[in-house]
Amino acid sequence: MAIILILGAGAMGSAFSFPPADLGHEVMLVGTHLDQEIIRELKKSGIHPKLKMKLPDQVQVFSHEELGAAMICQPDVIILGVSSAGVAWAVQALGPLLEQPVPILLLTKGLAVEEDRLMILPQFVAGGLHGFGIGQFTIGAVGGPCIAGELAARRDTSVTIAYPDREKFYWLNSLFKAPYYHIHYTTDLAGLEICAAMKNFYALAVGYPSGYLDMTDQLQNKAQMHNLSAGLFTQSIKEMAMLADWMEGTSENVYGLAGIGDLYVTCQDGRNSRMGKLLGSGMTYSTAKKEKMPDDTVEGAELALKIGPLLEHLFQKEILDKKKYPLARIIIDAICHDALMQIPWALF
Amino acid sequence: MAIILILGAGAMGSAFSFPPADLGHEVMLVGTHLDQEIIRELKKSGIHPKLKMKLPDQVQVFSHEELGAAMICQPDVIILGVSSAGVAWAVQALGPLLEQPVPILLLTKGLAVEEDRLMILPQFVAGGLHGFGIGQFTIGAVGGPCIAGELAARRDTSVTIAYPDREKFYWLNSLFKAPYYHIHYTTDLAGLEICAAMKNFYALAVGYPSGYLDMTDQLQNKAQMHNLSAGLFTQSIKEMAMLADWMEGTSENVYGLAGIGDLYVTCQDGRNSRMGKLLGSGMTYSTAKKEKMPDDTVEGAELALKIGPLLEHLFQKEILDKKKYPLARIIIDAICHDALMQIPWALF
Repeated sequence: MAIILILGAGAMGSAFSFPPADLGHEVMLVGTHLDQEIIRELKKSGIHPKLKMKLPDQVQVFSHEELGAAMICQPDVIILGVSSAGVAWAVQALGPLLEQPVPILLLTKGLAVEEDRLMILPQFVAGGLHGFGIGQFTIGAVGGPCIAGELAARRDTSVTIAYPDREKFYWLNSLFKAPYYHIHYTTDLAGLEICAAMKNFYALAVGYPSGYLDMTDQLQNKAQMHNLSAGLFTQSIKEMAMLADWMEGTSENVYGLAGIGDLYVTCQDGRNSRMGKLLGSGMTYSTAKKEKMPDDTVEGAELALKIGPLLEHLFQKEILDKKKYPLARIIIDAICHDALMQIPWALF
Repeated sequence: MAIILILGAGAMGSAFSFPPADLGHEVMLVGTHLDQEIIRELKKSGIHPKLKMKLPDQVQVFSHEELGAAMICQPDVIILGVSSAGVAWAVQALGPLLEQPVPILLLTKGLAVEEDRLMILPQFVAGGLHGFGIGQFTIGAVGGPCIAGELAARRDTSVTIAYPDREKFYWLNSLFKAPYYHIHYTTDLAGLEICAAMKNFYALAVGYPSGYLDMTDQLQNKAQMHNLSAGLFTQSIKEMAMLADWMEGTSENVYGLAGIGDLYVTCQDGRNSRMGKLLGSGMTYSTAKKEKMPDDTVEGAELALKIGPLLEHLFQKEILDKKKYPLARIIIDAICHDALMQIPWALF
């Protein structure tokens, strides 16, 4: 029996407690300072207010002030389930409490920017922990189509885990491979992480036609705009493959669960495609965010704001060929410059 | 101005009349013997009963008995828009009326079986026309996400055309590139055709979870089964890529509009995913077809019935590795052997 600590009690981190708990492992779920309401409710009723499911009994719940107490037993593996904005905090919170390297898996989907480089989060975390002088950490990530509420409902879910140490991965696999949780392995951490982050970003575009349709005259045959969504879905994958390649990953995961699988699931419904729909209906990002989704974290937009300026710099310096990323440019224009989002077909 | 003849007045063939007609070319739409009702309505009102749109004025409509009259002017290009079951008839109907080779483009999605070989339809058509001693035909195909009703509504649509003669393609492109119809070019005809056919086949599996969900206890958090659909979507693409490779195509189109794009659009709604949903709800194929979809052509099922025995033979002879095609086997079992469709995760 292993001890698993999950830092971040949002929907994703909390849903991730189900597979190891169901397999009989000890799971400690620790909230961030943003999870106080959630932690309170979990301690009271055991029911996660966003997942609307009761967590398995084995899951022990801690508030962020209790992280030190949770860490006393030095878990066998740490799962980061914070939002992309919380990763830096997570590193600073954990660093002082770690006595030795421990496997870390990121559920967090995002990217970091360091000077004029794009950096995957495992690298960012490893760099941040390095300063604590504890030793070398091996950090992996989980990608693939995984709506948190469905995982918490123990619906069949297939994911891909990237972990640089293959032997250690077999052990990690044994901790999480519940009957409904199907794990695939990849060595391509960079490609996986590009997929995990960018699928939220590109979902903004795939969601666009639905909103654009609402502003278009309905025709007698009630035609939708699925052809357009499908075209944008395809272009998204094309650009993700090029970015994965540029980050020295492969296209393996782009064409697999973490890329097409996760983009597919993200476009079923969800905050990113909902924001895309609002943009398609003619709203600017700032208006849509403020008036329609003030309390939602729209990870695709957060990512655009974080990496948009760098990408534009790389396009301008011709380090990346801007002609090959028309969709990324449209999304960056809409999110970073509050431009009305428009899909000019001549660009494709 | 060119003369374009479209044979087959179903939704797809008729929708394809819009781009060339809008560009000012002369379009002749000829029905098959199954299109009599459609042709009658078109001649009367100009409105296509399935597309529910009025065809452009330039489109001249002919019943199947008038094919000879339509062919008198020897069109510059022939479009085959028949169903997969109608291709053999189309070859026999056209052969005697052709005086010289003319470019042919297939809209039809399907595959042919010849002894123990899988054959793409352009090859089948070329072989069939060869017997008429007219000369060598160059035959291409159109793939990509294109819901017919949306094309008829002039919604933005991106497709891929494979045509072995690149110079001739530029001319063909000029006939069809209406402002809303965005054409990409590929030399990979085999890969494109595998995608076009198999996306209907695999959509049966991607539609399954929706029906399976209906038979499952609804949970308090109302979790759907999108994770499962996304996993099946991903596995479908994986198997399509292997089949394309086996047929000496590439994966270019599998990861492009004809593969992921068209599978994506096919899974939005449509007969194949509707049949998949019925299978997921616990019905056998024969019951579902007879009781729920008696008048619908479910192309994915038609394809399964046609190529299922051959694929099983190839698995048995180990010409194809059956361990790599678990989803194809599940679909063939359900459609060809009327087995209850079940997704055994151990197979993935």
